[in-house]
Amino acid sequence: MTFQVDINCDMGESFGAYSMGRDAEILDYVTSANIACGFHAGDPPTMRKTVKLALEKNVGIGAHPGLQDLAGFGRRTMNISPREAYELTVYQIGALAGFVKAEGAQMQHVKAHGAFYNMAAKDASLSEAIAEAVYDVDPQLILFGLSGSELIKAGNKTGLRTASEVFADRTYQQDGSLTSRSEPNALLTNTEAAINQVIRMVKEQKVHSVQGLDIGLQADTICIHGDKPTALDFAMHISASLKEAGVDVTKIRDVL
Amino acid sequence: MTFQVDINCDMGESFGAYSMGRDAEILDYVTSANIACGFHAGDPPTMRKTVKLALEKNVGIGAHPGLQDLAGFGRRTMNISPREAYELTVYQIGALAGFVKAEGAQMQHVKAHGAFYNMAAKDASLSEAIAEAVYDVDPQLILFGLSGSELIKAGNKTGLRTASEVFADRTYQQDGSLTSRSEPNALLTNTEAAINQVIRMVKEQKVHSVQGLDIGLQADTICIHGDKPTALDFAMHISASLKEAGVDVTKIRDVL
Amino acid sequence: MTFQVDINCDMGESFGAYSMGRDAEILDYVTSANIACGFHAGDPPTMRKTVKLALEKNVGIGAHPGLQDLAGFGRRTMNISPREAYELTVYQIGALAGFVKAEGAQMQHVKAHGAFYNMAAKDASLSEAIAEAVYDVDPQLILFGLSGSELIKAGNKTGLRTASEVFADRTYQQDGSLTSRSEPNALLTNTEAAINQVIRMVKEQKVHSVQGLDIGLQADTICIHGDKPTALDFAMHISASLKEAGVDVTKIRDVL
Amino acid sequence: MTFQVDINCDMGESFGAYSMGRDAEILDYVTSANIACGFHAGDPPTMRKTVKLALEKNVGIGAHPGLQDLAGFGRRTMNISPREAYELTVYQIGALAGFVKAEGAQMQHVKAHGAFYNMAAKDASLSEAIAEAVYDVDPQLILFGLSGSELIKAGNKTGLRTASEVFADRTYQQDGSLTSRSEPNALLTNTEAAINQVIRMVKEQKVHSVQGLDIGLQADTICIHGDKPTALDFAMHISASLKEAGVDVTKIRDVL
Repeated sequence: MTFQVDINCDMGESFGAYSMGRDAEILDYVTSANIACGFHAGDPPTMRKTVKLALEKNVGIGAHPGLQDLAGFGRRTMNISPREAYELTVYQIGALAGFVKAEGAQMQHVKAHGAFYNMAAKDASLSEAIAEAVYDVDPQLILFGLSGSELIKAGNKTGLRTASEVFADRTYQQDGSLTSRSEPNALLTNTEAAINQVIRMVKEQKVHSVQGLDIGLQADTICIHGDKPTALDFAMHISASLKEAGVDVTKIRDVL
Repeated sequence: MTFQVDINCDMGESFGAYSMGRDAEILDYVTSANIACGFHAGDPPTMRKTVKLALEKNVGIGAHPGLQDLAGFGRRTMNISPREAYELTVYQIGALAGFVKAEGAQMQHVKAHGAFYNMAAKDASLSEAIAEAVYDVDPQLILFGLSGSELIKAGNKTGLRTASEVFADRTYQQDGSLTSRSEPNALLTNTEAAINQVIRMVKEQKVHSVQGLDIGLQADTICIHGDKPTALDFAMHISASLKEAGVDVTKIRDVL
Repeated sequence: MTFQVDINCDMGESFGAYSMGRDAEILDYVTSANIACGFHAGDPPTMRKTVKLALEKNVGIGAHPGLQDLAGFGRRTMNISPREAYELTVYQIGALAGFVKAEGAQMQHVKAHGAFYNMAAKDASLSEAIAEAVYDVDPQLILFGLSGSELIKAGNKTGLRTASEVFADRTYQQDGSLTSRSEPNALLTNTEAAINQVIRMVKEQKVHSVQGLDIGLQADTICIHGDKPTALDFAMHISASLKEAGVDVTKIRDVL
Repeated sequence: MTFQVDINCDMGESFGAYSMGRDAEILDYVTSANIACGFHAGDPPTMRKTVKLALEKNVGIGAHPGLQDLAGFGRRTMNISPREAYELTVYQIGALAGFVKAEGAQMQHVKAHGAFYNMAAKDASLSEAIAEAVYDVDPQLILFGLSGSELIKAGNKTGLRTASEVFADRTYQQDGSLTSRSEPNALLTNTEAAINQVIRMVKEQKVHSVQGLDIGLQADTICIHGDKPTALDFAMHISASLKEAGVDVTKIRDVL
């Protein structure tokens, strides 16, 4: 039996004179790049540069639409309507698609950012609006979302291929949701524990909840956070450990 | 002998709670809509709405990229590099293309806005960067530019179809440039004079310069300014007068 | 016995090429102007112009800080921390104070805008942060807030003078809160009913709740919405009716 | 005979999730901090934090107004009118003054940023508008400007105290202007040469131009660029070298 998984990471989050992330290096260890589109981070020069980099490294290119909150890096919940969610998503996918087309390439996926991702995970109306936006722009795009979330349900319902995302370094609740970051046990700070958790999610489609029981969950793609100083080391480590454990780290197209 | 000309107008310049222009009405009298893309004006909801309106009215859809200067409505010259011009153009065409694709339609043209348009008219490097950006995103797009300008030259050189634009209500210098708005005689304030000028430009490809001699110029499309209170009346009047004079007002695709 | 009340209105909400409101006319019928500070609306030229206008009309000048959401006109709830609320408030009061000082005048009050106002009304931590920000910049400033809200409590606790605000055209719940705009009976659409309600609030400090019983509430200042087309008529009407009913419409300094 | 000079550095240029500069460390070696005000860089949290830091380190606080061009870090020339220059300056000084007042402190100076600084240096109308803005907000503020520039002339004419700024690591033309950064010899890359140049400027009020002759220039304050990786080392080195050469590095108030 073969196991396959995609590793995705947020990229292209620099803005103007401000630099963020070690994109060029991390791209060696991931298979999908979620590229910021100018609303929560990123700008036209960074988008162009990041698309080129991802193509050089043969990494799948995704649009990473966020809330229009540069000052808050798209991390602050905002009360937007499904209609606004649709429009934000179409705009940002389109903007990135401009650079992808200019390089003669194809966009692979869409992943919502930060608060937009978290809001959609629990809100069926927002999720349906996002899924429709993706479908309307290009029905071949793969929609990334938290495993078990409303966004995955909405994507499937709309007729999109979806990629269920898991987190190596976050703990899970009995209902399959992530433990809130405001809780003390939200993060797996031990790297080995994080890697063991993710290998088990990929191979057994199970995770041990903080309540102490196993729950089942789909694991198509693993999220690496690129804005931490340790991101590069973690990406290398997780990629190597998965391969050692017999898991093929490969583009999401091959996983689905 | 038949004469044909396109009439274009800036559209979709509302933003958030702010409304601008009488787009729905003016669309009845023009054949090309230059839709703002969120940098100098416009926002995702306005772009979506304006694309839908243009499709309903069977008006050609164009991206209207501008400088990133919402506070100045893109009218203030900014010292940007050709590389930046390329990136601004790709981003904004892409963003509008998202909405056009979501409606199952095709984008027709690109026209730079305000200071971006004026800067490019005289600067070969900026013009080449803009033309390349348009070509790289979609070589089928038609590039609009001031008749006789660097932008038209760059578009032709790059292999794009170009539309040479003339102004009904502006006066011309002997070298074919527009009289600067800082000059007292920059505008033809008499509507009949403006209409006669534009009919002659279309039928004879000539205009009488302020210096008193005729100059030749290509006239594929006529620009109507949509942000003036008199825009709707002027659009109606010019459209009717052209038809009366035996000029077919039609989409730029048919003119070229 | 004499009755006194202030009438306040949001002002200076134009931005760049976009015009909003009939400030110059409405200023004839109000006694306090809440001037947008560039985050949800307004910009430096508009702020300068509006400060000058308010001084000419002898209307009290207030800062009107909002969330950093120009695209949403500051009307979308955003999850900001009390620290962020403090910083947004200091920044925006300061920016307006620059124009007030440049005209040799004094700022009178501060009123939060839109979602920021509504969020603070129910959240003691946000309200305390706003009140501290106002106090720290200038303890002489008067803090406006919804009558009976957390913001009024926080202002009083911090040592600021506060102005309890009532709405002529909104209905009230038994607990003194405004009926949510999502409810069908949120607005008093009958102008006479609105005027009668406000006269009673000022003279008896009572309002008839939608549940059918009277509740007591403090009424120092009445809010007029300046962005509706009927705003000017309503301002004229309410000002005249109050005077007729023996209520002195005067600056908030005199009311408190 | 005693020699005195101020050292100033741009500060508070972080924005949202983006960090820039090593402000806390550099503040140990400078006497004036030019704090970004949110237009070209900086935001309310950064402004508050930087004002507090400067107070802790007993460094003079200045507003550092820039063009409204966050994407270009305020470095791109924009065609703004003197009226716009006035308004941008009042707004940004005011915003920073809010934080300074909230800490119970006094603002010391104003220095324009980047393209705004360079445009003003050569344009008497812009300079007069900036000087008036500073004077109108607070006539006690000290206006920083390039030594010999229009901004220094305008400040003096308006009745402000002015601080003539020199650059350690830039070369000078015979007319006292800085060699354009587009020229190969714009920078003194040798640190010792830079330090010798600046010591001579302070002690003899002279500099050797690239044309090979000495020119006289006023040197009240030395600019350190905080956004380079070597900024901290250069600040330490220049501060120590000046002291060794018998120059007292002290606040601009004491120099003037």
